[in-house]
Amino acid sequence: MSYHCVYADEVRMWVFEEVLPTGEKLSEVINKTNENIKYLPGIKLGKNVVADPDLENAVRDANMLVFVTPHQFMEGICRRLVGKIRDDAEAISLIKGMEVKKEGPCMISALISEQLGINSCVLMGANIANEIAVEKFSEATVGYRKDKEIAEKWVQLFNTSYFMVSAVQDVEGVELCGTLKNVVAIGAGFVDGLEMGNNTKAAIMRIGLREMKAFSKLLFPSVKDSTFFESCGVADLITTCLGGRNRKCAEAFARNGGKRSFDELEAEMLQGQKLQGVSTAKEVYEVLNHRGWLELFPLFSTVHKICIGQLPPSAIVEYSEHKPNYSIVGGSAQFF
Amino acid sequence: MSYHCVYADEVRMWVFEEVLPTGEKLSEVINKTNENIKYLPGIKLGKNVVADPDLENAVRDANMLVFVTPHQFMEGICRRLVGKIRDDAEAISLIKGMEVKKEGPCMISALISEQLGINSCVLMGANIANEIAVEKFSEATVGYRKDKEIAEKWVQLFNTSYFMVSAVQDVEGVELCGTLKNVVAIGAGFVDGLEMGNNTKAAIMRIGLREMKAFSKLLFPSVKDSTFFESCGVADLITTCLGGRNRKCAEAFARNGGKRSFDELEAEMLQGQKLQGVSTAKEVYEVLNHRGWLELFPLFSTVHKICIGQLPPSAIVEYSEHKPNYSIVGGSAQFF
Repeated sequence: MSYHCVYADEVRMWVFEEVLPTGEKLSEVINKTNENIKYLPGIKLGKNVVADPDLENAVRDANMLVFVTPHQFMEGICRRLVGKIRDDAEAISLIKGMEVKKEGPCMISALISEQLGINSCVLMGANIANEIAVEKFSEATVGYRKDKEIAEKWVQLFNTSYFMVSAVQDVEGVELCGTLKNVVAIGAGFVDGLEMGNNTKAAIMRIGLREMKAFSKLLFPSVKDSTFFESCGVADLITTCLGGRNRKCAEAFARNGGKRSFDELEAEMLQGQKLQGVSTAKEVYEVLNHRGWLELFPLFSTVHKICIGQLPPSAIVEYSEHKPNYSIVGGSAQFF
Repeated sequence: MSYHCVYADEVRMWVFEEVLPTGEKLSEVINKTNENIKYLPGIKLGKNVVADPDLENAVRDANMLVFVTPHQFMEGICRRLVGKIRDDAEAISLIKGMEVKKEGPCMISALISEQLGINSCVLMGANIANEIAVEKFSEATVGYRKDKEIAEKWVQLFNTSYFMVSAVQDVEGVELCGTLKNVVAIGAGFVDGLEMGNNTKAAIMRIGLREMKAFSKLLFPSVKDSTFFESCGVADLITTCLGGRNRKCAEAFARNGGKRSFDELEAEMLQGQKLQGVSTAKEVYEVLNHRGWLELFPLFSTVHKICIGQLPPSAIVEYSEHKPNYSIVGGSAQFF
């Protein structure tokens, strides 16, 4: 592809080695067939992609590192990379979903920067992998902290005619969008399960977007309103609330009147994949409770209370008496 | 309803008189049964609602006027009301869809103010009538020009536990959202018809929202970004792009490869109802062309060109080379 002529001929991809049922190693099959037959069957990878089961070897000499693993492996991976990467390496994280702890969220880009001492951007957006793989049109957002030139390099690297990438200077805003949308998707799933119709679903998505924005800005005052109009914001929220496993399980939960737990539904419906929205809702609730912000976030709070059985699914629309006014916290009406 | 205790005991509702197949007059049936059996069957109206076929009598003494008619009747209605209403009357328009003329849009609230010499607010939002009638939760936005107290009266009047109303000082922004969303819904319908998936649909909706915002701000610099986060903005856009007749006909248009015209599909699918998105797309295109803004609005332009057969439906995703930069017109990067 002509877009990539400024980049190296070989792109090394670290692969967590697995032995396939045929007895072959996954990395060897990828290099032989140019296809990840286990995780993205039917799609040819670029010819310049070389699978490498040796993490240290994969990153050696690399000056651009793309992180895309389940987020629970990131701490271990970073520990193994300390001292093994180039000093001038630049990182980007595509990892959606991060840990929200009581004292605030632990962001993956911050983890990378702190552990490895390098700069890290993020890439988020309405990006269901299978649809991108078959080259259907979509968009994505690069979030960067300071260095616009680096962000533009990442844009140039990822951009194609069917994958439109924009850069915004708001790494926290972009990264928080990717996590918080899953909580909203749980709420949207309840509305679907209760067959409340499109007005209600749109209202819940809108209130959810407002709470995503307000929560992000309370945690990081540098977060920009405009970020929520980007692909990482409104577009990813729409995709996740239309399809997506969080929405799907929440729909089933509401249809069963909350009588079957999320653990049970997850095991039955997701074949081993994990539901991020329920645990994120819990983590967000803890932050809200810890900081005294519960009343400001009726949707986030209600989603969690429904998930743990403290409220019925129908409560998703029953907080209209408590219209929040974020200005009492932030000292400004900017949150609306 | 306790909410409304500050309002008059009797709410007169002008009804364009029709003789029903039974030989009875519509207004008489409404007053006898408390139900508009022709246009909203099965729903009981408030007991304080009195249907009146005499327009002058209906508005006599009224100090709050709610306008909700097909927009093509508004000029004629206003002409008949000149000199017949109280000087201190306040108006609100619920009419979605207005005329976009070459020199700019002719807004209904402006028409009311100019013709009748009174102030007019607007009410817009994700408000499919049948869902509100059965009291499913939804939201709406009141747009006002200057007088916040009046806006709050309207909020108090319309607000219920299942219908949450907010007021924003941006009458043009709120009103333009109601019109322009239909153009985006046509684009979203093309994506559905071509089975491009949720990433693509979300991307088109997001680009559409960005163009709605940019177009509104170019026409009325007072329009606020935050308005597009309200129910009239993102929520109404979502509802319209999920259901809605514009989306539905555009889906059928794309499925037929553009070989059957919108006129034909409209006649077949809508039982006499009219498609606003196609004509709005044409009107918006004329404004863009007239002002030299075509390149800034690739989605709006492309929707119109597909509607008139100048481009195939698949063109809806083929303008990535022309990423617009609104700042060259507005002198600021605020539009993003």
